[in-house]
Amino acid sequence: MSELLSSTHPFLSSLAGHLERFRGKRLRPVLVHLSAKAFGGEAPLAAEVAAVIEMIHLATLCHDDVLDDAQTRRNVPTVNAQWGNRAAIITGDFLFSRALERLGRFEDPRPYRIISRAARLVCEGELLQIGARFNAGLTEEDYHELITKKTAVLFGAATQLGALLAGATDDEGRRMEAFGRGLGVAFQVVDDCMDLTGVEASAGKSLGSDFRNGELTLPVIHLLTSARPGLREELLREFRPGQANFERETLQRHLQSCGSIDYALDVARRELNRASESLETLPPSAARNALQNFPEYILARTR
Amino acid sequence: MSELLSSTHPFLSSLAGHLERFRGKRLRPVLVHLSAKAFGGEAPLAAEVAAVIEMIHLATLCHDDVLDDAQTRRNVPTVNAQWGNRAAIITGDFLFSRALERLGRFEDPRPYRIISRAARLVCEGELLQIGARFNAGLTEEDYHELITKKTAVLFGAATQLGALLAGATDDEGRRMEAFGRGLGVAFQVVDDCMDLTGVEASAGKSLGSDFRNGELTLPVIHLLTSARPGLREELLREFRPGQANFERETLQRHLQSCGSIDYALDVARRELNRASESLETLPPSAARNALQNFPEYILARTR
Repeated sequence: MSELLSSTHPFLSSLAGHLERFRGKRLRPVLVHLSAKAFGGEAPLAAEVAAVIEMIHLATLCHDDVLDDAQTRRNVPTVNAQWGNRAAIITGDFLFSRALERLGRFEDPRPYRIISRAARLVCEGELLQIGARFNAGLTEEDYHELITKKTAVLFGAATQLGALLAGATDDEGRRMEAFGRGLGVAFQVVDDCMDLTGVEASAGKSLGSDFRNGELTLPVIHLLTSARPGLREELLREFRPGQANFERETLQRHLQSCGSIDYALDVARRELNRASESLETLPPSAARNALQNFPEYILARTR
Repeated sequence: MSELLSSTHPFLSSLAGHLERFRGKRLRPVLVHLSAKAFGGEAPLAAEVAAVIEMIHLATLCHDDVLDDAQTRRNVPTVNAQWGNRAAIITGDFLFSRALERLGRFEDPRPYRIISRAARLVCEGELLQIGARFNAGLTEEDYHELITKKTAVLFGAATQLGALLAGATDDEGRRMEAFGRGLGVAFQVVDDCMDLTGVEASAGKSLGSDFRNGELTLPVIHLLTSARPGLREELLREFRPGQANFERETLQRHLQSCGSIDYALDVARRELNRASESLETLPPSAARNALQNFPEYILARTR
């Protein structure tokens, strides 16, 4: 990633240096590497594809931070906090275009095709989310489509490409895609649960904002469909733009009494179980073991 | 473009319909078509490449409108005015990724290689511009690099790809790229002059904002280097963040007395003359004639 972002221009190179400080969990690059290893070793292109996928993820974070007016990310000032919104938006665009430009230099067209499609679906998922704001009629199926696009396809692209670059067949690639996609769906469901029940200090970000922002997530969709009529009316009165009086604790109590968090985590577990089945045909290896531990890792955040 | 943006989701399809209302001059698609025709007829891919280049241009406009808080564009409400900043930023991202995704479906890797590189350079140019804000030491060479990246490379990609897709050799493609790039540099110089001397009503946007925003353009660079010391000091005092008292008329008077607009337009004319030389080896055709009229068209805005 450093190499792809290096520049002789002082401003560009200080931006690039800053971006590297947002060192998160790097789940997507790890998935590329492990998926490549599970199919017989490190593919020469895997490192670059891993960097490119992380850059696309980072691009979406730059834009999110502008939109959320976030001041820090992982204890580092956001690009918008440091250089303003204009710089942050263009930095996102730059990361995105630099990533896709790099993929275009490969002889193999698959990385470019798979990742540019995934990137478009991520945007589509985000637009669907905007279009669904304060729509109390959002169904579980709508939500599933939305998070699949917004989050899971990029996980799926990571696992699929890791495998393909290491010589997996198209069929094996599709199975690995299903694995990554399942991880991504579960990851997002867990993330959405944490927004409702998590502890701010350990999350490192402010919580409870989804409902306030008009974004229905799985536990709340469950709550709205299973709540008694009076409670449902009460919740719908709160689910309107500008309801700053909303208290996260009240919502938590209702979610608790309707079993909505447990319901959502069960959905996540089922996704992860189905995802794990995709690994069954892999030959035994340390990489396979590490991939098999991913579901546990994703659920660990809930405890 | 309609086809590439079509969707079964009501929100996505209303966004797409809205985007089509920003019907501007469409210079870049026209350049793709004419360049293809100048090399022996309409290439089957040219229409899609033209749409893709326009989508990338439109993506940058969506982001610009958020950053400038613009309410209308060509008498149509901007995406940010209609659906908010979040929608506008993601719409830009969506246009961009959809465009690059489409290019990845071609067997021919040249369109996505050339366009993804151009898109990255556009972002780099915009970042250089941000890094250079309120830098009174910006030279004419810096400015040339900046506008080449920000504006001219996409014009160059349009003319180069039009030619290549119609069967031009690599050498011919490079000559057509130089033609488009020269047009783009001249276009931006003229645009920057219009910001200083144009009439708001006919421009359809507010003017005089470059200097206020800390962006030095060619006429002002010339003015700063050729002004007598007292005037230079006065200008530098105004060239600082938050100088809302700045009057465009005062600057106009100084530009007039130093011949700075004439100087900049001479630079534009020289670029256009050099660009036209690239067309000399083309066989006679209606398309060649139309391309040869482009310089006149670009300069017509100044009269």
